[in-house]
Amino acid sequence: MLIVHVQVRVLPGMESAFIEATRANASASILEPGIARFDVVRHRDDPTRFILVEVYRDAEAPLRHKETAHYATWRDTVAPMMAEPRSSVKLDAIFPDPAKF
Amino acid sequence: MLIVHVQVRVLPGMESAFIEATRANASASILEPGIARFDVVRHRDDPTRFILVEVYRDAEAPLRHKETAHYATWRDTVAPMMAEPRSSVKLDAIFPDPAKF
Repeated sequence: MLIVHVQVRVLPGMESAFIEATRANASASILEPGIARFDVVRHRDDPTRFILVEVYRDAEAPLRHKETAHYATWRDTVAPMMAEPRSSVKLDAIFPDPAKF
Repeated sequence: MLIVHVQVRVLPGMESAFIEATRANASASILEPGIARFDVVRHRDDPTRFILVEVYRDAEAPLRHKETAHYATWRDTVAPMMAEPRSSVKLDAIFPDPAKF
């Protein structure tokens, strides 16, 4: 299991368009067999900041995700909305057990 | 619904003790009616860094959580393990729907 938190900051005014594109990507991503969760959350004190909480079942799943059409569509759609490059951190599950994610 | 990400950095050598105390707290916390998830994840590139991913069902749930005995035990147990003060950010769910967290 591999968990990835992706930090996103969008340009002011791009929030709704980013949410629409990101919901579409998340909805398709959670259907991938290698993806256990694909949560999208938004900073309460800064509505231009979001975090994607991606939970992959195995080490190869992130690469397979990036080969999907929905990922490519999302990447290209949101590219002009970014206020800064996205950053990400890789994490391991401590609790709960991986099967419960 | 309110999501809180708590950033933790422990002193080198305190990792196992922190994990033990934090698993105990998380196991009890997910039994609280106001808590939907209480995930604990660890940075892959820095094993002294952890994130608590806390998903509360309502605005009062964080306060009720901090009134529990398991929270007080955890707070006091891990206090000497901290390398720096914990920081947290409040977030709102964008995807999936709150009921699916």
